[in-house]
Amino acid sequence: MATNEDNLKQIISHSKEYGFVFQSSDIYDGLSAVYDYGQLGSELKNNIKSYWWKAMVQMHENIVGIDAAIFMHPETWKASGHVDAFNDPLIDNKDSKKRYRADVLIEEHVEKIRLKIQKDVDKGINKFGDAFDKEQFLATNPNVLRNQAKIDDINDKFKNAMNNDDLAAVKSLIEELGIACPISGSKEWTDVKQFNLMFSTEIGSVADSANKIYLRPETAQGIFVNYLNVQKTGRMKIPFGIAQIGKAFRNEIVARQFIFRMREFEQMEMQFFVRPGEEMKWYEYWKEQRIKWHKSLGMTDDYYRFHDHIKLAHYANAACDIEFNFPMGFKELEGIHSRTDFDLKQHEKHSGKKLQYFDPELNESYVPYVVETSIGLDRMFLATLSYAYCEEKLEDGSERVVLKLPAVLAPVKLAVMPLTKKDGLPEKAREILDSLKFDYYCQYDEKDSMGKRYRRQDAIGTPYCVTVDHQTLEDNTVTIRDRDTMKQERIAISELEKLLKAKFDLKQFLN
Amino acid sequence: MATNEDNLKQIISHSKEYGFVFQSSDIYDGLSAVYDYGQLGSELKNNIKSYWWKAMVQMHENIVGIDAAIFMHPETWKASGHVDAFNDPLIDNKDSKKRYRADVLIEEHVEKIRLKIQKDVDKGINKFGDAFDKEQFLATNPNVLRNQAKIDDINDKFKNAMNNDDLAAVKSLIEELGIACPISGSKEWTDVKQFNLMFSTEIGSVADSANKIYLRPETAQGIFVNYLNVQKTGRMKIPFGIAQIGKAFRNEIVARQFIFRMREFEQMEMQFFVRPGEEMKWYEYWKEQRIKWHKSLGMTDDYYRFHDHIKLAHYANAACDIEFNFPMGFKELEGIHSRTDFDLKQHEKHSGKKLQYFDPELNESYVPYVVETSIGLDRMFLATLSYAYCEEKLEDGSERVVLKLPAVLAPVKLAVMPLTKKDGLPEKAREILDSLKFDYYCQYDEKDSMGKRYRRQDAIGTPYCVTVDHQTLEDNTVTIRDRDTMKQERIAISELEKLLKAKFDLKQFLN
Repeated sequence: MATNEDNLKQIISHSKEYGFVFQSSDIYDGLSAVYDYGQLGSELKNNIKSYWWKAMVQMHENIVGIDAAIFMHPETWKASGHVDAFNDPLIDNKDSKKRYRADVLIEEHVEKIRLKIQKDVDKGINKFGDAFDKEQFLATNPNVLRNQAKIDDINDKFKNAMNNDDLAAVKSLIEELGIACPISGSKEWTDVKQFNLMFSTEIGSVADSANKIYLRPETAQGIFVNYLNVQKTGRMKIPFGIAQIGKAFRNEIVARQFIFRMREFEQMEMQFFVRPGEEMKWYEYWKEQRIKWHKSLGMTDDYYRFHDHIKLAHYANAACDIEFNFPMGFKELEGIHSRTDFDLKQHEKHSGKKLQYFDPELNESYVPYVVETSIGLDRMFLATLSYAYCEEKLEDGSERVVLKLPAVLAPVKLAVMPLTKKDGLPEKAREILDSLKFDYYCQYDEKDSMGKRYRRQDAIGTPYCVTVDHQTLEDNTVTIRDRDTMKQERIAISELEKLLKAKFDLKQFLN
Repeated sequence: MATNEDNLKQIISHSKEYGFVFQSSDIYDGLSAVYDYGQLGSELKNNIKSYWWKAMVQMHENIVGIDAAIFMHPETWKASGHVDAFNDPLIDNKDSKKRYRADVLIEEHVEKIRLKIQKDVDKGINKFGDAFDKEQFLATNPNVLRNQAKIDDINDKFKNAMNNDDLAAVKSLIEELGIACPISGSKEWTDVKQFNLMFSTEIGSVADSANKIYLRPETAQGIFVNYLNVQKTGRMKIPFGIAQIGKAFRNEIVARQFIFRMREFEQMEMQFFVRPGEEMKWYEYWKEQRIKWHKSLGMTDDYYRFHDHIKLAHYANAACDIEFNFPMGFKELEGIHSRTDFDLKQHEKHSGKKLQYFDPELNESYVPYVVETSIGLDRMFLATLSYAYCEEKLEDGSERVVLKLPAVLAPVKLAVMPLTKKDGLPEKAREILDSLKFDYYCQYDEKDSMGKRYRRQDAIGTPYCVTVDHQTLEDNTVTIRDRDTMKQERIAISELEKLLKAKFDLKQFLN
């Protein structure tokens, strides 16, 4: 059986082979933790965006969208807390000059101890087979107990140090554990320092003082600073939401797992403005709405779970993640946060502007509370792709790779193929293509055998293939093949448009 | 009559009032030359993107899209020439410490002389009226001739200096003309220096050397570095194109005219890869295709003109602009450039990778030539909005502001309104809305008089308003009002979908 890691490797390789995702600046051997979306990836990404935007903006009378710039006034990030507190604890090895995240060094050390426990368990399984009682073994084996105690001790010490902002204690822990630099093998470490994750640059050009600005690390603040503009010019009444899709940037030190954690990434966020005191009701509402949206795509329920945050961020009074079963296991796909009035109050303080909403029903003014839904577009892309990727053994003994993408997200909706390159079949196929291409992204393919062509369309997730054959010239019918069942039906060309409309109609998904 | 400048002011103010465009970080008094798109602006912008993408990618079998990252390997910009040559000549005033573009200081000085000539002409018109012969006056009046000679002399000197990279001569010219700092009035200037327009930042965090990278100043290079990846994985045959929509960044010193020239902006570019020697044929082809695309939107022909470049960029062997009649006059909206094999050859040199295409028909390998079409998305937005903005006097003596936006680009396609808030009319209106909202962005409005509601929809460019009245409850008909003619017709609710489909069907625009 393929391991999870193998599975991720297969997806990365499939992504590159079929033009979904390329390493950025490939010919220059790449730029770390940055990726480019290729000819099919850009279509899939656009389809995800559009499906989200329609569900949020077009389906809700009280939600509108905006598109704020990546550059914002630098005071924004003082107000939001990012200038002071958006940090990772970093440590340099004195010999290799390499920099590491202190928390990751410790985490990796813990992982090694955990692997020892796993090894002991595996030995037991090998020896005793079905008779092996794992739970009892974990609870009684002296080696396991000693190692588990070590792990607990390290975790406790690390949490205490971080909670008390005691970076010297973090360094001491690294030294105490004897952690060595993976490159130099050296145990000579500098002090631990906080490193801000925001990318900065300089704007304008005043002779004396440069103006430092940041690339936004989240899109949410673009909504907060515009909330009154939108409310007033859009005549919005609370409760209402503002949605946005856009790039954000974080200078992650440890950026890995393909497009799961990138330095340049894209968010789809919605901030919902509510009456103070009603935020928990709306928090529950949006938890329900968002999981419904995910499930509307038809990926099976067992791929999702909620994870409630125990430790809350300073701005939140409730928070949870929708986790997805990625190749690396269950990880955050979307966050739903009750952010209180923290951000708006901070912006009031830093801008000196009143950010109150006058509630005509209550006849009073207040700073609204905010419930946020925030989904990583690139993660959604990876979730969809990894769910869809299948290697199937067919009845005739051959194999196929098929992307069982939700049809509404598939890059190419329909492939049109003439059985042969002669007898007027290509012309007839193009005629069909020309009548459908305005509404659906279609591909024409006349090269190689039908079998090869079907395999190619399977591999990119095209839900339907239409084949034009000699009978088509007689009775204006074609065969249409379903990607998942591989079954073919004969239907009239005149029925095609209706069939596609029914298949891709948003009514059945978003209602 | 409103001047052009007034016209631009009206559009800026209308944009803010109705949620099309806000100054970025408004509550912090803005960030210079950066703007945010509001609830209607983001829809209009999305519709422009989608109209372009469909026309380029969905309608052309041999064009595909990509979505490359903003961050690229820094060597990209050495290869493209941006690190060495993407500069503006800047000069600082020693007293105010303010920095200026040397070319703009000189241009503004020339403009002052030009205004003197205009003043003399205006005097003549005032004095002689229709009898005034402007051409003869310009050719003979001694004042005018002297001023024109001055202008020619300045332009010559400046061009010579720039062509010879003689920045000292540029400074001398500024001193010779006695140009003073508009802020301090001082004529004490520093030397002229070249200032690179790329924004830079640092990625990763290696202890010793920081990694400087740039925010891309154009999207084109993201296509060039990916061209072989796309060609191979997409099985593309020359001629073929790669399209992309994305952000680019330039640290403009003089950024003005609203969203026409911003520091953060968006491009819609397509690079078309052709056989060497066939580039002029394709250059002509794309000139024709692109102007056809613009005109398909129904804005009148006199708003467009071609402007051929006389002086070509170092990478081009033919280039022209499609200019649009903006409120500021005819300005570049889109560029069509025959870029030769300059970029790909440069990337071969800098990456050490072969970027040749094997042409199966010719049975030989070569580096393709490239024809580029590059349109400023924000400029397209401004073009559309400024074309659409009308103040109309109505027959009853009242006035209305109406945005005569191309229907296919209008943010809201349809407003549904109950005549009154009772008798079940709102419910009936919502029922109609619910059946159409999956395919069209609709708005529901029940507030204020019908007249006010129509005015509001006119002001945001909604092509159709549907009104539900008491007759609707009897015979399931509604009135539908056309934005431009303001005429109302009575039609069956069951006919609405067909009517909208016909109105917005892309077949009629993109065929």
